[in-house]
Amino acid sequence: MKKGTGEIAKAEGKLGILIPGLGAVSTTLIAGTFLSRKGLAEPKGSLTQMGKINIKKDNETKYVNIKDFVPLAKLDDIVYGGWDIFEDNVYEAAKHAAVLTNDDLNKVKDELEAIKPMKAVFFPQYVKKLHGTWIKSGATKWDLAEQLISDIENFKKLNKVERCVMIWCASTEIYQEPITGIHDTIENFEKALKESHPSIAPSMIYAYASIKCGHPFANGAPNLCIEIPALQELADKNRVPIGGKDFKSGQTLMKTILAPGLKARLIGVDGWYSTNILGNRDGEVLDDPENFKTKEKSKLSVLDQIFQPDLYPSLYKDYCHVVRINYYPPRGDNKEGWDNIDIAGWLDYKMQIKIDFLCRDSILAAPIALDLVLFFDLAQRAGMYGNQEWLSFFWKSPMHPAERLPEHDLFVQSMKLRNTLRWLMDYPLQTHFGDEHID
Amino acid sequence: MKKGTGEIAKAEGKLGILIPGLGAVSTTLIAGTFLSRKGLAEPKGSLTQMGKINIKKDNETKYVNIKDFVPLAKLDDIVYGGWDIFEDNVYEAAKHAAVLTNDDLNKVKDELEAIKPMKAVFFPQYVKKLHGTWIKSGATKWDLAEQLISDIENFKKLNKVERCVMIWCASTEIYQEPITGIHDTIENFEKALKESHPSIAPSMIYAYASIKCGHPFANGAPNLCIEIPALQELADKNRVPIGGKDFKSGQTLMKTILAPGLKARLIGVDGWYSTNILGNRDGEVLDDPENFKTKEKSKLSVLDQIFQPDLYPSLYKDYCHVVRINYYPPRGDNKEGWDNIDIAGWLDYKMQIKIDFLCRDSILAAPIALDLVLFFDLAQRAGMYGNQEWLSFFWKSPMHPAERLPEHDLFVQSMKLRNTLRWLMDYPLQTHFGDEHID
Amino acid sequence: MKKGTGEIAKAEGKLGILIPGLGAVSTTLIAGTFLSRKGLAEPKGSLTQMGKINIKKDNETKYVNIKDFVPLAKLDDIVYGGWDIFEDNVYEAAKHAAVLTNDDLNKVKDELEAIKPMKAVFFPQYVKKLHGTWIKSGATKWDLAEQLISDIENFKKLNKVERCVMIWCASTEIYQEPITGIHDTIENFEKALKESHPSIAPSMIYAYASIKCGHPFANGAPNLCIEIPALQELADKNRVPIGGKDFKSGQTLMKTILAPGLKARLIGVDGWYSTNILGNRDGEVLDDPENFKTKEKSKLSVLDQIFQPDLYPSLYKDYCHVVRINYYPPRGDNKEGWDNIDIAGWLDYKMQIKIDFLCRDSILAAPIALDLVLFFDLAQRAGMYGNQEWLSFFWKSPMHPAERLPEHDLFVQSMKLRNTLRWLMDYPLQTHFGDEHID
Amino acid sequence: MKKGTGEIAKAEGKLGILIPGLGAVSTTLIAGTFLSRKGLAEPKGSLTQMGKINIKKDNETKYVNIKDFVPLAKLDDIVYGGWDIFEDNVYEAAKHAAVLTNDDLNKVKDELEAIKPMKAVFFPQYVKKLHGTWIKSGATKWDLAEQLISDIENFKKLNKVERCVMIWCASTEIYQEPITGIHDTIENFEKALKESHPSIAPSMIYAYASIKCGHPFANGAPNLCIEIPALQELADKNRVPIGGKDFKSGQTLMKTILAPGLKARLIGVDGWYSTNILGNRDGEVLDDPENFKTKEKSKLSVLDQIFQPDLYPSLYKDYCHVVRINYYPPRGDNKEGWDNIDIAGWLDYKMQIKIDFLCRDSILAAPIALDLVLFFDLAQRAGMYGNQEWLSFFWKSPMHPAERLPEHDLFVQSMKLRNTLRWLMDYPLQTHFGDEHID
Repeated sequence: MKKGTGEIAKAEGKLGILIPGLGAVSTTLIAGTFLSRKGLAEPKGSLTQMGKINIKKDNETKYVNIKDFVPLAKLDDIVYGGWDIFEDNVYEAAKHAAVLTNDDLNKVKDELEAIKPMKAVFFPQYVKKLHGTWIKSGATKWDLAEQLISDIENFKKLNKVERCVMIWCASTEIYQEPITGIHDTIENFEKALKESHPSIAPSMIYAYASIKCGHPFANGAPNLCIEIPALQELADKNRVPIGGKDFKSGQTLMKTILAPGLKARLIGVDGWYSTNILGNRDGEVLDDPENFKTKEKSKLSVLDQIFQPDLYPSLYKDYCHVVRINYYPPRGDNKEGWDNIDIAGWLDYKMQIKIDFLCRDSILAAPIALDLVLFFDLAQRAGMYGNQEWLSFFWKSPMHPAERLPEHDLFVQSMKLRNTLRWLMDYPLQTHFGDEHID
Repeated sequence: MKKGTGEIAKAEGKLGILIPGLGAVSTTLIAGTFLSRKGLAEPKGSLTQMGKINIKKDNETKYVNIKDFVPLAKLDDIVYGGWDIFEDNVYEAAKHAAVLTNDDLNKVKDELEAIKPMKAVFFPQYVKKLHGTWIKSGATKWDLAEQLISDIENFKKLNKVERCVMIWCASTEIYQEPITGIHDTIENFEKALKESHPSIAPSMIYAYASIKCGHPFANGAPNLCIEIPALQELADKNRVPIGGKDFKSGQTLMKTILAPGLKARLIGVDGWYSTNILGNRDGEVLDDPENFKTKEKSKLSVLDQIFQPDLYPSLYKDYCHVVRINYYPPRGDNKEGWDNIDIAGWLDYKMQIKIDFLCRDSILAAPIALDLVLFFDLAQRAGMYGNQEWLSFFWKSPMHPAERLPEHDLFVQSMKLRNTLRWLMDYPLQTHFGDEHID
Repeated sequence: MKKGTGEIAKAEGKLGILIPGLGAVSTTLIAGTFLSRKGLAEPKGSLTQMGKINIKKDNETKYVNIKDFVPLAKLDDIVYGGWDIFEDNVYEAAKHAAVLTNDDLNKVKDELEAIKPMKAVFFPQYVKKLHGTWIKSGATKWDLAEQLISDIENFKKLNKVERCVMIWCASTEIYQEPITGIHDTIENFEKALKESHPSIAPSMIYAYASIKCGHPFANGAPNLCIEIPALQELADKNRVPIGGKDFKSGQTLMKTILAPGLKARLIGVDGWYSTNILGNRDGEVLDDPENFKTKEKSKLSVLDQIFQPDLYPSLYKDYCHVVRINYYPPRGDNKEGWDNIDIAGWLDYKMQIKIDFLCRDSILAAPIALDLVLFFDLAQRAGMYGNQEWLSFFWKSPMHPAERLPEHDLFVQSMKLRNTLRWLMDYPLQTHFGDEHID
Repeated sequence: MKKGTGEIAKAEGKLGILIPGLGAVSTTLIAGTFLSRKGLAEPKGSLTQMGKINIKKDNETKYVNIKDFVPLAKLDDIVYGGWDIFEDNVYEAAKHAAVLTNDDLNKVKDELEAIKPMKAVFFPQYVKKLHGTWIKSGATKWDLAEQLISDIENFKKLNKVERCVMIWCASTEIYQEPITGIHDTIENFEKALKESHPSIAPSMIYAYASIKCGHPFANGAPNLCIEIPALQELADKNRVPIGGKDFKSGQTLMKTILAPGLKARLIGVDGWYSTNILGNRDGEVLDDPENFKTKEKSKLSVLDQIFQPDLYPSLYKDYCHVVRINYYPPRGDNKEGWDNIDIAGWLDYKMQIKIDFLCRDSILAAPIALDLVLFFDLAQRAGMYGNQEWLSFFWKSPMHPAERLPEHDLFVQSMKLRNTLRWLMDYPLQTHFGDEHID
């Protein structure tokens, strides 16, 4: 990992947060930011807003707020903007999403109504279940990218914003694999944009525009997007931090908590069955098998890296892992995940664990989105660029170099994040050896 | 932490494991050791037998077996002995416990039948629900201690054993607090033994005998036992490792996996309700309120240290924590723990988690007991003595110095254990910073 | 069963509903009645308001509304009144109970505010956890009864009400058994009232006042109350219908649904473990062991009558039945019941059922209270008096003649109720034989 | 319903039970019959073997054994035979199915080994996941039918059996709808047999053979089979009782217990989500979408008839019903069903019920198969023929006349069955009115 030489630049002036997709997650994020600013609610679940870190100085350990330890942008300095395929302003979109109570939304109604979506880049074949009505038109995909770039420039001018981070909060796109000749180099990618190649997805165009403008890009959905070499090359060239993918919010969060626990104790796993019911727009989109495949890949990958079946064949080889997602409208945004885990202990005697997680998708995702944006902005000011592996903590399927697996264990991820913050500020790393305190 | 100067002594010759309480846990441990030795079953759940550790040498990371990395006693070198309040040999006791199948027990019947309990030290007021029939008599408690010491000496002579570890696998005793004048110094304690003071519990007498003989003592139940200053002083004086208390086997294991996950994400907790049903002898003993209190204290303490309510008052202050244990014979040794957790996320919106753990008490506890014995023996050979805090990983309620809280977070405990092993062998500690691998 | 000769009297004029205890259940009942009247909500869960019955006339089966089939009082004709130990009006009490949303309560705010509690009869030793401040004083218990009678007379005069039903919705009192010389005859009971005997509970005084005035009395809590011979004698003498006890609202409802299903299939039961968590005033009261005992008795009794262990010893004899209730404030009125059932099938092979019921106590109880009141009023107009066994459907612990067990099976109860309605209106009874339709 | 005039014929001599499919269910049935005969196990779950019925004679109610009340064949008089696509004898097949313990199977090893399957009629396109090796060959499907008929005749001769019942315990076939010109008349069906029409399924050929021989046929799978007019016509013509379909064993059993309970209380239903995990051969077959469709239809139908959405639109119209089955090998025959039910009470306030049923498919199905065979034999001796609607109690998807819906409510089904038994023996029917006892 590299950090720039010299000091981390201060977080002065306003920070723009640009969001493709003003749906359940992003309206919950925006309303929550405004409510928190006014002291009307607490940003629970946010590491940057509520987290502390223990540091050792002059041989004494103490706990300080993360936001006081590293120079983060303040909630007061955030300006929101975004794109959507429907014309609703953020207040209307938030009411439609039905995550927050009317009571809460009304307390920040004016601020929410003031945020109106820009027209979106949208290609129906990527999300067949949605029928957008607030869509950019352009001669080519290159044209659409240009329009996004000028949206960004206008937003910055209008809001007197210098620094921006873009974070994808729109739908899961259909499953794609990178294609040589299209996705492999900046040159080929730009050629494909100009030719409106069908394998250029909307999320790629947003990412391209953001990185081109020098702004970090974070990918909240399991789309291929910035995982293609062309965009990674561009990020390196422009020295822009990027990262993804897919907010680790509900059932996968639970998995990456529980699996490391079983692993620590070397309790064998014969099978892990996960089913989800959810009724929001996300659920509707994932009801399409092509979109579900993208999500399924993201959700299935987490266990193998944690269990290391090659190292522990008698414990973790050939366990049966099944993941199902079901569109079930009665539940709305209140997603429910039910997991059954068949485990094997001493002498291979069998036991079972069942977990029923009555969660709320957007309530869990909103603080993750906020933390990511603020840490990406920090990374850029610290001179870090390319994939920010130290933020794996937030991703369901963290991007990683080809030579090693992604890190999925939540506790390793947490330690990696915290020790990176210590390293950034030149403090000793935590090892939990001897009398080192809880983190 | 201190290790002796010079080399860790080799694990040569036989290792005696002496167990007060030949019930469900210990018979499962013993039968499993014999089955594993013969290659008829795998000691799943055991870190010493199946665990690996990643180490860095010459800048290359590799995974090696823990038992090859540190010099541990081999299963083949173990000799078992013990005391019980019933005369059944280990085969009979194992059948009565009904944890393992007859099929499995019959494969090692001869070895199990050969282990016959020595008469136990037992005072009915400490476990009113049990009515032992194989009990030592003696003029005073001091006398009983002397008898135990000679049991130990005879066992060593008979089995040609040099090194021994004693591990308490008997019942939970009634709740006690340390009493000044009785439990505070070696001198007072020995005086109280001679006067047969009622506040000297059986488990204290076993611990005294073991430490007196220079053998490590591990306390698998939530009894006060070696937490009294007198016995800690004796351990220091005799340079004997000790530790406890209460095997972290079922619901508490799950808690110390899940709670750190919620904490890492700063998800608030409004309440945690835990209920247990179990039908074995353990369940029967805990049906007595005085014994339950001992267990309850042990089970209730874990969350506070993990959640740090003083640091995070708006997230973790004043949550409602309820723990119930119910004697429910239909379930036998197949304990079931059901947890309901009321959590609060972004803007204080509420969610719920339910965990149903269909576990098997002794299957989870047996490998813990084995690991503890082997690590205690290692510690002694490495010149470590007093409370072995680095083994907190295995305890429901780890003993700790007065100046700090016990460590309950399973992942911190695991890292502490693993980095201690690296430190013992002069390898660099793991921090998970940068590209450091999963452990 | 006897019905009066001649016609059932019409439900003309207003019907007074008098409620001791204006807490969660009764305020939910009252607000719901007003919302339903205005067409702002539906009285789901109410048999009298939404139920249908199939009847055969001229050899043709058709479904008609129960409220059109038998002559019931209309919601529009109901007038509410009541007593409470706090002075809050019904709007304030409903807000405090936090069952219904503020949105819903505000739609009927005026009507709710208009209902102010009369001062209650309350003796602290019957409910130690509550500290009432709106309490009648009187020289003797007889005096207090007289005051209640004049409350009733005033209420009727003021509201121009002829018919009244009283329904107990206040707290569970401590456990009592009937005492000869006090509870056995009208004479002894009135003597004990005059002597302020400590074994005369508040609920008995309310019941006495109601029956004395000629009004039916229904007992929504598990208190002894009208089960004493003295009050039954008085009901017979005054030809007043009475019934109880304890609304069958949550976990017991589920039990009396599931147990008959297992029984129908002759699936054996080895154990049934039930735990509850609830955080409302009810939960607080039941946290006192003396009050819990009253509830526990009520909850434990249901299974034996359904399973008939004497008839089916190998299936249902000696199963282990455990019921626990835990006060757990995070949950408020949103009670949760978790049941584990250990069952045995073909050749005694074991299986398990777990039921997690995330219910809302008052939402389930309110329609039961409404139905009971309307059916009791019907019964009185039909000339039926004494215990209304045909309404067992609504009770957790139905009152019953000494010569037979109470009926707990929900489906038998339902059929008994429906066939009684047919019998009242001289229609043929349903047997489900041949092509007889679903009810 | 018609019963023959005169007496029910006695159950004299041996009764042959002929089973297509000697897999998990049928080997569990057979082994259980033998174990029960020897007094080594109890046939729990069987109405015919353990059930009682209350009857009124001379104005006194008493409970008698069902098997003493109606003239049923005795377990001692049963002779088993069957067909399978693998050559394993019943002992081998039972070990492979891994439902019963080796201990139990060994107690009746000789009897089980003696039953060797006849070669099966099998067409791979109906069950693509299985690859049978013990298959009849024949020029046409008509030929195969003739071979089955001679199998039956030989079986009867060999075992000196007069009466036989055939019960399908083989796999679920792919989804089919009846085709006019093929399935509509006996004539067309026989023509199609001779032409080996692809729409003639194996199960139809077995049913044809059985009915042709005058023996009742019961269909334990959700196949179309005897629901086609041709076979119903043949059953009427030959005066043979038939019935189906699909043993109501696990999750659907639970649904038809719980749904009538919610309905009785008029609690609204917004959604019902059911998922299953199972790992036996049945699970593997249902992993094929064409076979799953057959099962799904059978499982989805049950709720609508119970809830009557047309009568109760605001409670039960447009609820979301989802059923999923997942092949999950770790679980073997120990099927698990998890149901989530979203319900709506008073004023439409929402609640939830979760049911986790850790069941054992064959343990639940075996007693159903036994009861069906014995009641079909009774029906035939009583002169009843055609579809035996009164046995709906046992079927997941009961066959029914076109003019009315099937009956799914377990309690209505139970009453229908019991009142039919009373009617057969000329006893008064039960109505549960007044003081009529529990059934």
